[in-house]
Amino acid sequence: MIYLDNAATTGIKPRSVINAVNYALNNLSANPGRGGYETSNNAAMTVYECRSTIKEFVNCESENNVCFTLNCTHSINTVLQGTLKEGDHVITSSLEHNAVIRPIFNLFLEKHLQYSVAQVDKDNKVTVKNFEKLIRKNTKMIIVTAASNVIGRLLPLYEIGQLCKEKNILFAVDAAQAAGVIPIDMKQMNIDYLCIAPHKGFYAPMGTGILVAQKGIDKVILQGGTGVNSVDLTQPEELPERIESGTVNLPGIAGIKAGVNFVKNKKSEKIYKHEIEICQHLYNKLLKSGATLYNERPEINAFAPVVSFNYYGFESTKVADLLAQNGIAVRSGLHCAPLAHKQIGTVNIGTVRVSPSAFNSADDIDKLMFVLKKLI
Amino acid sequence: MIYLDNAATTGIKPRSVINAVNYALNNLSANPGRGGYETSNNAAMTVYECRSTIKEFVNCESENNVCFTLNCTHSINTVLQGTLKEGDHVITSSLEHNAVIRPIFNLFLEKHLQYSVAQVDKDNKVTVKNFEKLIRKNTKMIIVTAASNVIGRLLPLYEIGQLCKEKNILFAVDAAQAAGVIPIDMKQMNIDYLCIAPHKGFYAPMGTGILVAQKGIDKVILQGGTGVNSVDLTQPEELPERIESGTVNLPGIAGIKAGVNFVKNKKSEKIYKHEIEICQHLYNKLLKSGATLYNERPEINAFAPVVSFNYYGFESTKVADLLAQNGIAVRSGLHCAPLAHKQIGTVNIGTVRVSPSAFNSADDIDKLMFVLKKLI
Repeated sequence: MIYLDNAATTGIKPRSVINAVNYALNNLSANPGRGGYETSNNAAMTVYECRSTIKEFVNCESENNVCFTLNCTHSINTVLQGTLKEGDHVITSSLEHNAVIRPIFNLFLEKHLQYSVAQVDKDNKVTVKNFEKLIRKNTKMIIVTAASNVIGRLLPLYEIGQLCKEKNILFAVDAAQAAGVIPIDMKQMNIDYLCIAPHKGFYAPMGTGILVAQKGIDKVILQGGTGVNSVDLTQPEELPERIESGTVNLPGIAGIKAGVNFVKNKKSEKIYKHEIEICQHLYNKLLKSGATLYNERPEINAFAPVVSFNYYGFESTKVADLLAQNGIAVRSGLHCAPLAHKQIGTVNIGTVRVSPSAFNSADDIDKLMFVLKKLI
Repeated sequence: MIYLDNAATTGIKPRSVINAVNYALNNLSANPGRGGYETSNNAAMTVYECRSTIKEFVNCESENNVCFTLNCTHSINTVLQGTLKEGDHVITSSLEHNAVIRPIFNLFLEKHLQYSVAQVDKDNKVTVKNFEKLIRKNTKMIIVTAASNVIGRLLPLYEIGQLCKEKNILFAVDAAQAAGVIPIDMKQMNIDYLCIAPHKGFYAPMGTGILVAQKGIDKVILQGGTGVNSVDLTQPEELPERIESGTVNLPGIAGIKAGVNFVKNKKSEKIYKHEIEICQHLYNKLLKSGATLYNERPEINAFAPVVSFNYYGFESTKVADLLAQNGIAVRSGLHCAPLAHKQIGTVNIGTVRVSPSAFNSADDIDKLMFVLKKLI
């Protein structure tokens, strides 16, 4: 099978990641930080090393800012529910995934949170202006996706971060499609909360999530045992314990560490360039074939490696099904991001989405195009 | 190393569990229920088969009641925050883990939830009476641990379930120490919400949790992409999608399925008997050695395989450290369960906790006792 749905989860996990999970299952099945014996200490060391690897990779303040969650959605919920209160205003973008917009809408319903949606333009300056115009006195946070999971467009994180700094607004980023793919420097970009889906750009196992929290989390979603201050009926104040109630995903964390190292060793900029070239190859072929495309040709520093299209008015699901029957895996439908589809006018038919990883090649695209032509 | 901290997580994972995780990482890295291609369908089938396996094992109504979470703490929070509202009253037991009491206390602080703590007695009839006496007009739920993680005592689930049925009260069970170990029949015991730590009694990987919800969840902790009703800005109503926002832990779920089958094949009642015999062996030896024990000799159907003790007034941590230095892994301290320590009077020194699994033997206990005697 040719797997081109890496924006959902990277379909080929590196040997080093699988080995790390295996090693953890065989040798580190002990609750880290809960016991004082060898396996527990080794498990705790693995967790610490993973935090340290992430800290370096995203340039945050301390290992303690790196918190492990179930998935990126869990990270985003932790940030939004943990910091926004009744009377606060939050601004988000027109390209958000339901992982961002659903918790915001729920806070609007339950806590009268105010929210605005800034239109993302192809001109970054216009985008930043669109955000700036929406800022109110009570704007507490801007939260944006780093890259649209539908059309791939990158948001101007650095510029939005500067705006947040100037206006003293918290800045949170949903980096589900971006971490491991494009460079993210939390300090340089003034990012307070970074939400990561390590099973995508870090090639880690599914069932892993990271929240890098440079600022505090006021209200905690998951209360429970933390291994510290056990006699206290309230959560500990300090990160990461405040966030990490219950047993962590040790094999997953071991896999994250190996995955980040895979990306570092391969050089993420090289992987990114490789993936964008595949996307450009696809884009060019699609354009010639008469497919409908939803943005300009994907270029480095403007797009994540994601291309959405439709083909001669066929429903996206029909196209994806034909490709699946021919051994090619792509995604169709709304990709859990209805806002983005409103922007590009595809709420009814969805889009066919192709998203390569380090393990794909231009050949895969040629095979996809060959099958696609069977439709007409 | 002799691992005797299986109440934290089972330290030896069966070969079949490790193989299942491996298989999933190699062959099922695709988002289940999100794509229409082969790997995604196979991943979805694995998830369905796991739900089905759990359904049979705990005797719930439908596969759709089986929801996957990060850990048992996540499951418990989902139940408590999802069902209890301002003005409601909840009753819990005097042996609860912080995974239960911290979310309750937080709801008390934030939402003026009323709560009462029923004393667990060695006589089950007294325990049930203690619960009954605390029932008020606004009592919405009774939530109890199935087995204390400190002293192992089983709570009379069947009797409390009957009480809940009579009084029309929701019944939730924290089965972290019990699922896979003692028989749990949700229908027979009238359990509405069952919270499971599959990485313990099911020998699954850490980073897995299950909530079996026979009734609905009103307020959802994690909002996000569910792969269904994507155009809707609110969570879908139906389970399990309502609970499972974002990417699930596919390798972990594959591991759960293999783990439950491991327990089924070995016969859980046989494993339980084996573990209790090890606990009795330890109990007898400790009693002779002059250790302080906190309950009667553990018997089948009265205790989970957990023994807590202290030794000649030494701090529990000191005893555990000595054992660790000699290659024996046990847990010391409060085990995240301060209430239980209040009941047995060990808040200051904690207890040394020994918890065997299917992979331990009486020999392990003899070695532990040999080292223990070095202390005096």
